[in-house]
Amino acid sequence: MAIACEERVHALRGQLVRQGLSGFIVPHADEYQNEYLPACAERLAWLTGFTGSAGTAVVLSEQAAIFVDGRYTLQVRSQVDVQVWSARHLIEEPVPSWLSAVLRPGDKLGYDPWLHTPQEVRQLKEACSKAGAALLPCEPNPIDALWDSRPAPPAAKVVPHEIVYTGTSSEDKRYKLSRQLKNENIGVAVLTAPDSIAWLFNIRGGDVEHTPLPLGFALLYQDGTASLFLDTNKVTAVLKPHLGPAVRIQSVTELPDTLEQLGKAGERVLCDPNRTASWIPERLARFGALVIEGDDPCLLPKACKNAVEINGAREAHRRDGAAVCEFLAWLSREARTGQLSERDTQSYLDDCRRRQPLWKDMSFPTISAAGPNGAIVHYRADEEQCRRLEPGTVYLVDSGGQYLDGTTDITRTIAIGSSTPEHRDRYTRVLKGHIALAMATFPKGTTGAQLDTVARRPLWEVGLDYDHGTGHGVGSYLGVHEGPQRISKGGQTVALQPGMILSNEPGYYKSGEYGIRLENLVVVIPATTDRGDGREWFAFETITLVPFDASLIDETLLNATEKDWLNAYHARVWAVIGPLVDSSTAAWLERATERMP
Amino acid sequence: MAIACEERVHALRGQLVRQGLSGFIVPHADEYQNEYLPACAERLAWLTGFTGSAGTAVVLSEQAAIFVDGRYTLQVRSQVDVQVWSARHLIEEPVPSWLSAVLRPGDKLGYDPWLHTPQEVRQLKEACSKAGAALLPCEPNPIDALWDSRPAPPAAKVVPHEIVYTGTSSEDKRYKLSRQLKNENIGVAVLTAPDSIAWLFNIRGGDVEHTPLPLGFALLYQDGTASLFLDTNKVTAVLKPHLGPAVRIQSVTELPDTLEQLGKAGERVLCDPNRTASWIPERLARFGALVIEGDDPCLLPKACKNAVEINGAREAHRRDGAAVCEFLAWLSREARTGQLSERDTQSYLDDCRRRQPLWKDMSFPTISAAGPNGAIVHYRADEEQCRRLEPGTVYLVDSGGQYLDGTTDITRTIAIGSSTPEHRDRYTRVLKGHIALAMATFPKGTTGAQLDTVARRPLWEVGLDYDHGTGHGVGSYLGVHEGPQRISKGGQTVALQPGMILSNEPGYYKSGEYGIRLENLVVVIPATTDRGDGREWFAFETITLVPFDASLIDETLLNATEKDWLNAYHARVWAVIGPLVDSSTAAWLERATERMP
Repeated sequence: MAIACEERVHALRGQLVRQGLSGFIVPHADEYQNEYLPACAERLAWLTGFTGSAGTAVVLSEQAAIFVDGRYTLQVRSQVDVQVWSARHLIEEPVPSWLSAVLRPGDKLGYDPWLHTPQEVRQLKEACSKAGAALLPCEPNPIDALWDSRPAPPAAKVVPHEIVYTGTSSEDKRYKLSRQLKNENIGVAVLTAPDSIAWLFNIRGGDVEHTPLPLGFALLYQDGTASLFLDTNKVTAVLKPHLGPAVRIQSVTELPDTLEQLGKAGERVLCDPNRTASWIPERLARFGALVIEGDDPCLLPKACKNAVEINGAREAHRRDGAAVCEFLAWLSREARTGQLSERDTQSYLDDCRRRQPLWKDMSFPTISAAGPNGAIVHYRADEEQCRRLEPGTVYLVDSGGQYLDGTTDITRTIAIGSSTPEHRDRYTRVLKGHIALAMATFPKGTTGAQLDTVARRPLWEVGLDYDHGTGHGVGSYLGVHEGPQRISKGGQTVALQPGMILSNEPGYYKSGEYGIRLENLVVVIPATTDRGDGREWFAFETITLVPFDASLIDETLLNATEKDWLNAYHARVWAVIGPLVDSSTAAWLERATERMP
Repeated sequence: MAIACEERVHALRGQLVRQGLSGFIVPHADEYQNEYLPACAERLAWLTGFTGSAGTAVVLSEQAAIFVDGRYTLQVRSQVDVQVWSARHLIEEPVPSWLSAVLRPGDKLGYDPWLHTPQEVRQLKEACSKAGAALLPCEPNPIDALWDSRPAPPAAKVVPHEIVYTGTSSEDKRYKLSRQLKNENIGVAVLTAPDSIAWLFNIRGGDVEHTPLPLGFALLYQDGTASLFLDTNKVTAVLKPHLGPAVRIQSVTELPDTLEQLGKAGERVLCDPNRTASWIPERLARFGALVIEGDDPCLLPKACKNAVEINGAREAHRRDGAAVCEFLAWLSREARTGQLSERDTQSYLDDCRRRQPLWKDMSFPTISAAGPNGAIVHYRADEEQCRRLEPGTVYLVDSGGQYLDGTTDITRTIAIGSSTPEHRDRYTRVLKGHIALAMATFPKGTTGAQLDTVARRPLWEVGLDYDHGTGHGVGSYLGVHEGPQRISKGGQTVALQPGMILSNEPGYYKSGEYGIRLENLVVVIPATTDRGDGREWFAFETITLVPFDASLIDETLLNATEKDWLNAYHARVWAVIGPLVDSSTAAWLERATERMP
């Protein structure tokens, strides 16, 4: 019989007592350390009711806490039982700090070694040790014993991703990486990130919603051969010829034995301490392998798109821009009725995208947020909360598509009827930040953390800010969130490099009133500068092509350079998208891209 | 007999062979991990001839390399024998990366455990292990066996620093920190940073040039008592009553035994893995202590100056501003002759400072750099290189004072006669960056790395940059370079907090032609903002009070906000400094602070 939601924490505590534990930590993670989880790995949602894309729960005998970041501070309070859960800020109060404050000497905190990286385990261990408590691996996960209609693991077919979209063969990619392994005296690299595996083998799957990921594991050997561990149900007839003789397709059940063999052979094995489940290096080390910690070798080459991928992204953004413009033109006609609901607009927009060539999926569930719902950063309109787009409010729509040639992600904020001076002031400051980032030129070696402030300054000047990053990496028909590139406050060391695709999305949110976010995707390109002193310089090319709502711009806040940028951008949108849309959309687009004096 | 300079590397190689080593690493460091070294610790200079404040040499049997940062790339080539030493960039090619590329399997690299932190040792160990080589501690340092007129360690008297300057008693400081140790279940904290020890005990010394540091070690116990380990020659009669009964003054020779006792008692001992010589935690651990790694607990409270210290800094900057204005007024009269040398101007400026009340020392050797010498970031005029200040060039002067109530550091760049449009363009861009940083408001949690870009943007826009940080922390009658606060490109996690003093010093350098740097000190203060959403906001108060050279400003590049800032700053300089200076300086100052239209 299913356990009722409010009883789950109670049941888990019972289970912990039986396993001799004082507590258990439940991250939003699966054994691939992937942001996008299949239903069977949604243990955090099962236990707490919280459905956001990031968070961690800790259940102790006397208390239970859930940690989420700034995007989810409102959502978590509406989803979890606040009698049971204390909601905390993941960044301001990291889980390890909280643990070392609340754990008592002799406490035993359990964790699932498949759901935490070695780096996370080290931090948890240190936190426990500060409190005189112990951290213990638990296998199987105690939640799985309680979760009785737990969904089966997904088993979508794995298909080749053609070279017309990838631009480089899997063989070439493996050859390059294997030379790097050789140089670093590494015998084998363990790959567990599904997007790394998808990229390396030029394959795509369907194991999670909205992202064509094949969940599995892989080993890349120093000689360029590889083993790909998949649920055998996922393997299609075309896969073997696509992968060629140098790639062994094995059942995922063979992974533990293979790791044991590598250990017994004393292999030098590369594992990413931030992206591999700690179970894997622990097993390797136990059987004698020398585990070498280092970045997943696919990370950087995957992030730095080649010419074919960049061109694909540009193409996908033209079709996506046409779809979004079609939607916005419709919205400008229909919104005045005041009768449209968030779900009406969402389905119209989704339909516009579905009709585009090479469209495969949305890149995430469309965020269609009217008025105060716009302040909930990762809002999802459901039956209960669904609002109408009322005159005098602003409407925020964040959406994207998965096309065979590229992944898109765009946010626009639209005035429904008239707007207030405050709306226009905030919108224009967000736009100024967006433009400043879009126009940035920066020397080789610059990280996203260094550029983040550029987008925030127009808000900071008046004591305002937004509680999310300014930009995330985006994959090529892969994750709409992709590392290691990122533009955010957090300290990070990855320099931006040509070919990286990122979002440029400053925002401003007034809780209970409205939200503003303006998001385009950009690609890092080499910049030409006159006065070079031998340094390499980079800049951004904006690839999203959809106008900004001019009725929300306070022109007096824009300087000449900003107006020039906006006029040039709108002229480009009109030139590229105009020919792709129907005549009523074109009529709207011509007005929407009119030159600002 | 003394070994000639060119033979030192040869002699060291011989010594290494006798000790069974394939190489040895020579950092610019002493056993206190302090930037400012006494002469007896200048092993890097002895070995290589390089006298910069940061760098590392590695001697292997077949090659020798010296690593310096961007400030020293020109200087190192002029100081070391490039036949013997390959000069490398410390940041672009870190020592560990280079080591793992050049070491061969079986190599044995030696290091002095007194000169490297545990964190550095881990990185070196990993680099060696990648290459199949080993890292071995060497004691004593093989250089000491070769260095025959090595200076004796300094033994300047240690004196109390009065509460009128510190604002808080040592007892209060120790009480607060000891409560923190208790909360974190730490028995003893090891302190080795001389400025931490100076701050905690309210003492000053004179063991290194220009910074009143007492070199020594200290232990702070959970009960608020402490042990201070000093060379007994440094102890004065006033020290014991100043420190009181809770502080045991011990000879530095007793440290090894004391650490052994702590180990045998199984104490939980805090060591900073980035600031303690690895010898110390290694000894503690060997005898059974539980070494807990964490930040030096004095770091943050020392950096966040209290009201008395901030007021002292403001006072010191008034006197320092008067001294620098007196110098600049003199320079404006005398420079037209074209006969002044860098050393003439340096001694005039130093004399102006010496006459100020509470002056104790320069805070570093004055950088007096004419024309192309300005492009050498840490230039020091000596007999050979000393240039005249010629008409048509720019002159850069970076200097500071140690006053009992505060430490100052200021850079101005002055046109000697007429300037070129390029000079004015670059000067104005540097000034725009300086003003943007001075005007920044930012939310609690913002790090210096996030603000660094604000100062660089006006240069980045035209493809220019500067190869040093934008700001360093400054102590209170202590180090002119002080952590953990910093404004620089590098990833760092310390948020800026009220009371921190930093420099604001963007620059631009054209090798072989000229250098521009504009430096004021600022203190982080709470900002009042109208539209707060519960966040705390901070801003900078500029405390340096000396005009910028208006003849180098291209007014067309400044916007209204920037002009407003500059006019308000100059009005403040005139109001505060005007009454403090003689009439001819006042006449110059009135003109120099005239309002820009």
